Amino acid sequence: MNGFVSLVGAGPGDPELLTLRALDRLQRADLVLDDALVDGQLLALAPQAKRFFVGKRAGRHSIDQADINRLLVKAAKAGKRVVRLKCGDPFVLGRGGEEALALETAGVAYEVVPGVSSAIAAPALAGIPVTHRGVASAFAVISGHAESAFGPTLDGIAPDTLSLVVLMGIKTRAAIAARLIARGWSPETPAAIVFGASHDGGVRWLGTLRELPGVDTSTELPGVLVIGRVVALADQLPQLGAQPPIALEKTS
Amino acid sequence: MNGFVSLVGAGPGDPELLTLRALDRLQRADLVLDDALVDGQLLALAPQAKRFFVGKRAGRHSIDQADINRLLVKAAKAGKRVVRLKCGDPFVLGRGGEEALALETAGVAYEVVPGVSSAIAAPALAGIPVTHRGVASAFAVISGHAESAFGPTLDGIAPDTLSLVVLMGIKTRAAIAARLIARGWSPETPAAIVFGASHDGGVRWLGTLRELPGVDTSTELPGVLVIGRVVALADQLPQLGAQPPIALEKTS
Repeated sequence: MNGFVSLVGAGPGDPELLTLRALDRLQRADLVLDDALVDGQLLALAPQAKRFFVGKRAGRHSIDQADINRLLVKAAKAGKRVVRLKCGDPFVLGRGGEEALALETAGVAYEVVPGVSSAIAAPALAGIPVTHRGVASAFAVISGHAESAFGPTLDGIAPDTLSLVVLMGIKTRAAIAARLIARGWSPETPAAIVFGASHDGGVRWLGTLRELPGVDTSTELPGVLVIGRVVALADQLPQLGAQPPIALEKTS
Repeated sequence: MNGFVSLVGAGPGDPELLTLRALDRLQRADLVLDDALVDGQLLALAPQAKRFFVGKRAGRHSIDQADINRLLVKAAKAGKRVVRLKCGDPFVLGRGGEEALALETAGVAYEVVPGVSSAIAAPALAGIPVTHRGVASAFAVISGHAESAFGPTLDGIAPDTLSLVVLMGIKTRAAIAARLIARGWSPETPAAIVFGASHDGGVRWLGTLRELPGVDTSTELPGVLVIGRVVALADQLPQLGAQPPIALEKTS
């Protein structure tokens, strides 16, 4: 009896932004390993499955990646249909590649089910297209987790040549803004934070790179940073920004 | 009687990679405006809708963007539920922002339904995570449509600081490779082209930046370029690369 692991992208949070394949895998799962950012409503779609929470929250690892890998292998070898459910897309800063390598090494059958990435959907649902003709024909998605990692990447991107989306960058936003300004980005470059896109209570902040460090980030909702001239389009797309559940608030 | 326009991301092609919301909007549509790259299977999901093909193929505009905008406005004002169906995500080089602006200006109610972007999913389904711990903590997505646009963007990215994904870059791949090598990227940087990810007959090519210009691109399937050290992971993830319908062929 052979198990199987599906590395599934859950999308930004709203269950309607799951793919049909993700829903199918959840419905047939024996076991779901989920992260902190996965919405509880998604787990209701896997009624037969046991749930194992392996989430990491900022600054605190509730379970090591190596342990997650071992759990996936063990459950699959015990014949389980396992869903490893990750916020957004499994391969966008989600460590899905590491899990895939562990499954390959252990000889376990697995697949990836790509998801709607929050890096693109969170800006979109807040009225910000990451690309727009005449404004930006490229965008970069980077991790804001540690300056040692994002610093050289930010230094490597010439100012205002593309839209920047930063995931896991709320805590490090002051360092990110300072590094970009030192690199030559204008302090008046439009910037946004989208908190909880597609979650209840989602809210956006619109301002500039200079103002980014001072944003009130006391909400518990996950936040996506967007930097670049595309952010200014949000003012011209009020209906888009008002899509539930994003509120049209400007917190500074 | 008020119409409504949904700007819907169709994902990379396989109907199972549609979101639940996209499926809902198709099922309730009166009219679907679709592009060249949208799989015919998706249109079967909108049985009640009239279909209007507004696709552009490389080098040939079958219908101007301004005409598409006018069509969307006119149909919505006639009370239709309209789906504007776009390959991948509507805001990733899909001109969705322009359509949103036209709808705002005309006072038409609309929404965006984010989709699974081919920029992330095509590499994933070919065994290439766009980010991977210790290899790349960032990626950029750029249009390969015209050197005047992609040249300055490529020049602005320091070599080997992130993974590069190029959409609409098959015809310009020689110019892209030359520009990157001139910028200081090693000619031996791993590179891939994923043709028709999630479509029947999908196939991938794996090689290097130096070899990119010589790849046989005679297939009619859309291709996504991936450049960077993450491409080398494909060799370690054979199961992932073998996910139907990607064949494990290496054409050079």
